[in-house]
Amino acid sequence: MSGEADRPVFSGSCPLPLTDYPTVQLAHGGGGRLSQILVEGLFLEAFRNPALESLHDGAVLDTAAGGRLAVSTDSFVVRPLFFPGGDIGTLAIHGTVNDVAMCGAWPLALTVGFILEEGFSMEDLWRIVSSMKTAAGAAGVPLVTGDTKVVDRGKGDGVYVNTTGVGLVPEGVEVAPTRARPGDKVLLSGEIAVHGIAVMSVREGLDFETELETDSAALHRPVRALLESCGAGVHVLRDPTRGGVASALNEIAASASVGVRLEETAIPVAEQVRGACEILGFDPLYVANEGKFLAIVEPGVADQALEIMRRDPLGSQAEIVGEIVDDHPGKVFLKSRVGGQRIVDMLSGEQLPRIC
Amino acid sequence: MSGEADRPVFSGSCPLPLTDYPTVQLAHGGGGRLSQILVEGLFLEAFRNPALESLHDGAVLDTAAGGRLAVSTDSFVVRPLFFPGGDIGTLAIHGTVNDVAMCGAWPLALTVGFILEEGFSMEDLWRIVSSMKTAAGAAGVPLVTGDTKVVDRGKGDGVYVNTTGVGLVPEGVEVAPTRARPGDKVLLSGEIAVHGIAVMSVREGLDFETELETDSAALHRPVRALLESCGAGVHVLRDPTRGGVASALNEIAASASVGVRLEETAIPVAEQVRGACEILGFDPLYVANEGKFLAIVEPGVADQALEIMRRDPLGSQAEIVGEIVDDHPGKVFLKSRVGGQRIVDMLSGEQLPRIC
Repeated sequence: MSGEADRPVFSGSCPLPLTDYPTVQLAHGGGGRLSQILVEGLFLEAFRNPALESLHDGAVLDTAAGGRLAVSTDSFVVRPLFFPGGDIGTLAIHGTVNDVAMCGAWPLALTVGFILEEGFSMEDLWRIVSSMKTAAGAAGVPLVTGDTKVVDRGKGDGVYVNTTGVGLVPEGVEVAPTRARPGDKVLLSGEIAVHGIAVMSVREGLDFETELETDSAALHRPVRALLESCGAGVHVLRDPTRGGVASALNEIAASASVGVRLEETAIPVAEQVRGACEILGFDPLYVANEGKFLAIVEPGVADQALEIMRRDPLGSQAEIVGEIVDDHPGKVFLKSRVGGQRIVDMLSGEQLPRIC
Repeated sequence: MSGEADRPVFSGSCPLPLTDYPTVQLAHGGGGRLSQILVEGLFLEAFRNPALESLHDGAVLDTAAGGRLAVSTDSFVVRPLFFPGGDIGTLAIHGTVNDVAMCGAWPLALTVGFILEEGFSMEDLWRIVSSMKTAAGAAGVPLVTGDTKVVDRGKGDGVYVNTTGVGLVPEGVEVAPTRARPGDKVLLSGEIAVHGIAVMSVREGLDFETELETDSAALHRPVRALLESCGAGVHVLRDPTRGGVASALNEIAASASVGVRLEETAIPVAEQVRGACEILGFDPLYVANEGKFLAIVEPGVADQALEIMRRDPLGSQAEIVGEIVDDHPGKVFLKSRVGGQRIVDMLSGEQLPRIC
């Protein structure tokens, strides 16, 4: 029998204004404004603690044993399950390896939880599991424990995958969204919007001359190289997944109470991706990436950081795309191609549902 | 761009015989024989490594920093979401705290991943989050990071919750299913089958004189007391959730290549639960528990272990229910109330879908 203290207690009414959204909307999972309201207004309200309040994609724990542990969790609900260059399985490995890496940590192990829908093809499950094996093997991060649940037909969508990663943060590394400081440079490891467009092109049946493949990749090795070279000069790391570069930088701007100024001309976007964005009506700044990262570094190490990033095939197209400023705290603004300046806000609606 | 090594590779055909089950069945998630086939034949086949091969509910990692880390993951798909004495949120906290505790570890932190269905009531989400807050607070284990995804209406069932826990294994603790040895005593912390029957009674509309509440509870404190008292004399710990005591002991018997002999008369079952099992046609040995644990200990510390377990309110009805033997390796057999003996096999079908 459960003790009184363990009993569920319905503690007061929902802190979100239910008149606006009495039920969950797709956009609550889109990585934009509504996601932020849900996370900050409801989850953070309930679970408040210092690790969670950093609102990073992972948490860093100080263990009594002396090491700092990074933990990150992600559920994957992408559709279709298979897309050019990857599938839900590779995404689940890369996504969580990357979230651990973005804490400045070296990933030690992953866990995996499957939610399978009754009637899902066993062959497709094996395909997904095989690609997880390949991706985890290539990343050198073992899957050490797992769980499987099966739900009735019509209560799932084939398969949903959760992966959680743990890693160790090396001594001397101090990476956190709050550490962005005016003067810091913003580095981006390569061309943006590739994953989102690769998935959307399948959904929308777009044909390209050359097939556009997801950029999904494990980024812990280039991140380690960067940290080994620039140490505590690396202030913030972030992989701009759901909600894209715009949402990631907005979150950092809000966390650190600084402004972020981007140079549109410096942001690498492949021609094919730019074209697809125009057809689909997307701004590439908001489109998900799964193999790119942002690094916000001290100005004194920026050139060195850029060189290190470019040495890795995953960062060969890295650029310095902007800087941290002290005006417009909490905002991201873009110096456009034609010289104007515009605010790059959080997305308020849902742009790309179920992209990861 | 992803490197060649990271690319998904469809490595050969599915290792499960597809003629039997070309698609996922509910029973693949039921904790019985089909679950075992899926885990061992497919997941273990792909992800083989020493930590995973222990087939425990969690994994223990040796970190370079000197500590042993336990990691466990669980997804929760129970229906209904709310039931007497708990809900999916309390279950998600207790279940993962317990899986970490069953590695002999003290839980440090939890992560949470929500998969929400579009249209799910925000008020219900808040209720669930509130009970998670209460349960995590009572357990003293913080939720340090999380993730939320939203899937389209008709592709989920309100909410699915994944929790993953990390903990530290104290020095001197050596707990693993493979450590069960002939002569060891099997201790059970209290009355079985309560959670499963509490949930089924709501689903089936059974009326009891007094409402039957789930036994869902966090067990890390009584486990710690046991380990502090009996140290390495504790060989195996296991919470008999999905598939009940029978499945948990079958897994241990197979892991350690030993037999398990149970005394039916020693196994505590509440009258009300026994009655409900008869009505529903269930054997209480296969029904899920969420606040009970099995401890397999050296014979020399068995009485001491029993006394320690009984000191905690969560173990006040603890009993020695059987022993490990060297005949019938891999099997569990029960000396019945009337003196006969029968094999207690793994369940081959699905008894209670979506019980956790």
